[in-house]
Amino acid sequence: MLVLKLGGSVVTHKDKPFTPHIGNIIRLAAEIAHASAQPLVVVHGGGSYGHPLATEYRIAEGYREPRQLAGFSETHQAMVELNGLIVRGLLDAGVPAFSVAPSSFLATEGRRITGMDLQVVEGLMESGLVPVLYGDAVHDTQQGFAILSGDQLAVKLANGLGAERLVLGSDVDGVFTADPKLDEGARLILELSLSDQGGEAEIGDALDTDVTGGMQGKMAEAAEAVEAGIEVLLVNATVEGRVGAALRGENVIGTVLKR
Amino acid sequence: MLVLKLGGSVVTHKDKPFTPHIGNIIRLAAEIAHASAQPLVVVHGGGSYGHPLATEYRIAEGYREPRQLAGFSETHQAMVELNGLIVRGLLDAGVPAFSVAPSSFLATEGRRITGMDLQVVEGLMESGLVPVLYGDAVHDTQQGFAILSGDQLAVKLANGLGAERLVLGSDVDGVFTADPKLDEGARLILELSLSDQGGEAEIGDALDTDVTGGMQGKMAEAAEAVEAGIEVLLVNATVEGRVGAALRGENVIGTVLKR
Repeated sequence: MLVLKLGGSVVTHKDKPFTPHIGNIIRLAAEIAHASAQPLVVVHGGGSYGHPLATEYRIAEGYREPRQLAGFSETHQAMVELNGLIVRGLLDAGVPAFSVAPSSFLATEGRRITGMDLQVVEGLMESGLVPVLYGDAVHDTQQGFAILSGDQLAVKLANGLGAERLVLGSDVDGVFTADPKLDEGARLILELSLSDQGGEAEIGDALDTDVTGGMQGKMAEAAEAVEAGIEVLLVNATVEGRVGAALRGENVIGTVLKR
Repeated sequence: MLVLKLGGSVVTHKDKPFTPHIGNIIRLAAEIAHASAQPLVVVHGGGSYGHPLATEYRIAEGYREPRQLAGFSETHQAMVELNGLIVRGLLDAGVPAFSVAPSSFLATEGRRITGMDLQVVEGLMESGLVPVLYGDAVHDTQQGFAILSGDQLAVKLANGLGAERLVLGSDVDGVFTADPKLDEGARLILELSLSDQGGEAEIGDALDTDVTGGMQGKMAEAAEAVEAGIEVLLVNATVEGRVGAALRGENVIGTVLKR
């Protein structure tokens, strides 16, 4: 089975609050439909839906004052709204997508998933459905609540469900030798083994940051899946055809993470 | 703790597809806010949001053909939309409501909940939140999928969470000796013990039916909570003040179910 993560910068206009990127959503839904790669689980990020409220109410830091309770709920509701648009796009393309709310079935412990019951997700997949989950505002057993990133969730799902491949789609081509926006000589790294990750400054600064961690965070999360023997592929989901090719297992521009 | 169920005929215009009863939603949100009855869990029905799609795709009967998969998903999405309006109403009234999707954390077995992990719901309540759940299209381990009624869910939650009181709000005053719409001599039964339920024809036909079972089904569900020692109260949630009074434990027009 495959797990596909679509970053918040792909499914939303990241600089415009609560603005979905309908063009990307519809195009990716068609790519997913044509790839016919099932069983499949899709996870998406929050982008401009998740961040404004999470930041305003300081949800990631955990519970501090009662007014955050409404903010916690509203952050989740914003994600529900974005998720509804993505499920709608997938259904319209013929993908039997089914929404699954992370905050309804899991809690973090100090911002980390330490265990989750995957029976419902597995049951939905057995019925032929494609569960669609998302980065979410979740209950945290230590700090009251936390922001669960789509990256952490995608990796835990890939590990828990025994995925063959985890495709991480963002708005960059993969991992570069330097920031491609600042350095003309930056080269895309086609294969990266975990042991190469020493040069974090080289990699980490290359990419856009995120309240839930930029590429450095993504690499740290992904390492868990790579260690479990899952093929992890970083691709640019804003470029037509790449997610489709990655789902079909074809050669595609991107970075493959290896042990 | 208390569990409050609001029927689909209360939160929607039952005869107009996908039409919320915003007046009732806002009024009830204020009643819940003023009752200050916490810990509290709210469950709502589907009314005109849940039934049209569930009926069209024959979701309650379980999986028969692939086109039902999209219908199953759309039935859930319709409930998500209604739930969003109710959570919005509660938040606006100052109730720290938090949406919990039943289909994300439980599956039925032959249309019945045989067990559910309440850790997340309990965790949210410990944080001071009011979980808001609903009748939903859920995975069923026997028939692929099923319709879980809000009544069944409310009773299972009341039992699982050890509720003191379960308030079932519908659009009728309670259980009558005959159908009050047809028989002028019909009297409201203020207290009903389970052993009186032999005369089902007397009670069962009195009330509006539902794809998930009419009053007879409600009584059968409620019996489980009554047997566990939970006070179950049937009230008319379309009449101002009754839900508020029931939550505060005051005397109110309705039917109390006793062992």
